[in-house]
Amino acid sequence: MSGDNPIRIGLLSCTKIVRKLSRAINLSPNATISALATYTSSIEEAKSFAESNNFPPNTKIHGSYESLLEDPDVDAVYLPIPASLHVEWAVRAARQGKHILLDKPVALNVSEFDQILEACEVNGVQFMDGTQWMHNPRTAKFMDFIKDFEIKTVHSCFSFAANGNFLRNDNRVKPGLDGLGALGDAGWYTIQAALVANNFKLPKTVTALPGPVLNDAGIVLSCGALFDWEEEGITATIYCSFLANLTMEITAIGAKGTVSVHDFVIPYRETEAAFTTSSGGCCLSEHKVMTELPQEACMVIEFARLVGEVKNRGAKPDGFWLSFSRKTQLLVDAVKESIDNNLEPVILSGR
Amino acid sequence: MSGDNPIRIGLLSCTKIVRKLSRAINLSPNATISALATYTSSIEEAKSFAESNNFPPNTKIHGSYESLLEDPDVDAVYLPIPASLHVEWAVRAARQGKHILLDKPVALNVSEFDQILEACEVNGVQFMDGTQWMHNPRTAKFMDFIKDFEIKTVHSCFSFAANGNFLRNDNRVKPGLDGLGALGDAGWYTIQAALVANNFKLPKTVTALPGPVLNDAGIVLSCGALFDWEEEGITATIYCSFLANLTMEITAIGAKGTVSVHDFVIPYRETEAAFTTSSGGCCLSEHKVMTELPQEACMVIEFARLVGEVKNRGAKPDGFWLSFSRKTQLLVDAVKESIDNNLEPVILSGR
Repeated sequence: MSGDNPIRIGLLSCTKIVRKLSRAINLSPNATISALATYTSSIEEAKSFAESNNFPPNTKIHGSYESLLEDPDVDAVYLPIPASLHVEWAVRAARQGKHILLDKPVALNVSEFDQILEACEVNGVQFMDGTQWMHNPRTAKFMDFIKDFEIKTVHSCFSFAANGNFLRNDNRVKPGLDGLGALGDAGWYTIQAALVANNFKLPKTVTALPGPVLNDAGIVLSCGALFDWEEEGITATIYCSFLANLTMEITAIGAKGTVSVHDFVIPYRETEAAFTTSSGGCCLSEHKVMTELPQEACMVIEFARLVGEVKNRGAKPDGFWLSFSRKTQLLVDAVKESIDNNLEPVILSGR
Repeated sequence: MSGDNPIRIGLLSCTKIVRKLSRAINLSPNATISALATYTSSIEEAKSFAESNNFPPNTKIHGSYESLLEDPDVDAVYLPIPASLHVEWAVRAARQGKHILLDKPVALNVSEFDQILEACEVNGVQFMDGTQWMHNPRTAKFMDFIKDFEIKTVHSCFSFAANGNFLRNDNRVKPGLDGLGALGDAGWYTIQAALVANNFKLPKTVTALPGPVLNDAGIVLSCGALFDWEEEGITATIYCSFLANLTMEITAIGAKGTVSVHDFVIPYRETEAAFTTSSGGCCLSEHKVMTELPQEACMVIEFARLVGEVKNRGAKPDGFWLSFSRKTQLLVDAVKESIDNNLEPVILSGR
């Protein structure tokens, strides 16, 4: 595998998150940036963006997404575009045989995501959503404890205090763009954390909690929900908000122990990530996990590895990430449905 | 005030918690043990209990609660008896002019507690419930941050993994004794923590969360609930359980900052208690509060101080603790009512 060429990634759009991800790709030995496409900037502006973010000098600049998707020197694409555009561009990318790294929320709802899923499966492309925390080496470590502790309940929250400009103008508060608001953004992480508690199994019922805050356009700015895995006697509560101080907590409590993570979404330090455990009624133990590379680079490396298996070894794409994204989207949808339906429980069987 | 004699406390029963509280009284300069009453042990056994726990040599041993309540050398009583007996013995104590330190839950329901409350008011006796964490100096410190941070949501949980013997035989799982189970025991603390979030104001609605676990006799072993202060846009979730690993968490998230406490019920260390704050999107700050005396002694000192004001200076009893206990009991009742009523919200207005 060490003889393989790096996976060539095309980036769509010149946004802040592309800046972060391009650094991650540059840090990843098995990936490289081969192209950048822009719809809204001029070619000159895109060139300047590429230069100032240390893209390789031979990066091709495309004036449209279509053009990038037809570029034979692109193996995979990163799509950090508004959620309302995901189904169109992810399906197009899959049809062009491009492997896909897609920002969360992966779609506006699960039926849209199922079109993406089908296009990936039909065209044999690898899919991963761009949620980075799952790839931090810390996550695997604390998941080991979660497996051992026979989890009974999980509470996860991700909030940040958005400023007035964000609350008026960001894609994430606009119905036509990322229409799922805090639920599809901050909530995405909390839902994934809840799924981790029961080995990625879907809960049986989802109930939104009283007190959601919506903006005038009906976009969720803050909400909570409860997931109930009835058979196993496990519950999880989540809280996500654009209106409260930065908080990124997981507390998973089991019959045999407790795991707490205080910065699960983005660790306070890039090179070291901590979590605590306690068990047997004893006090807290702190665990520190050294991370040579930032978690977004870990994500790119794993994505490029999976793409490499498909491209260079004819492997079937790994379906885990499609499945995990679909479950997360299903739970986003269910929380939204419960909010829209006067906090009635939503039963997930069969979905 | 320094010239006043210590407040003379009578203890009812020879239980483990009396052992802990007698040590606390011995550590309190303004309180002393003057009497011990037992119903179930012999006088000889009670004497031996008193000796082995370093009670003062002149402690009077009474063969009945009635006898202790008539003892003129008792200013105040500590009642660590099953909740089902609280209304009877607390009312009797008040009528004898004895000030009252009462274990939680303070009653089986708020209408019972209102009888205790009335007896205390009519007889001018000081009341306090025996929940110790409120008296740890740390609590006042983190409450200062909570006041500043404009709290939006609080999550508090207290769980411990009870063993089989506890789950079969403890008072707390028996309908005839402490009939409120984990909700009246562990839940009491989590409810108090939620009340702290909004300056001791009652929420407008209380909704039990899906997934409560009850034993065959209908006693709650594990449950969660949501409190909604609708006007202020504040919510709180609680989780209490006899079935999960020892966990004692408060996470209070505000517009301006977050407070986390990981051992709020009983600090892991007796002489030092910590909590963390974060604000402005920055990382965590740890705050350590030194505690010369264990929190149960802080409680006894404050109780004896209030009793001393009444006894020695003719002050009116301080009503804060009666009010706080009543609110806590009201919320315990409301969670139970919601559980019994298919998780329907309970509206508290006017209660």
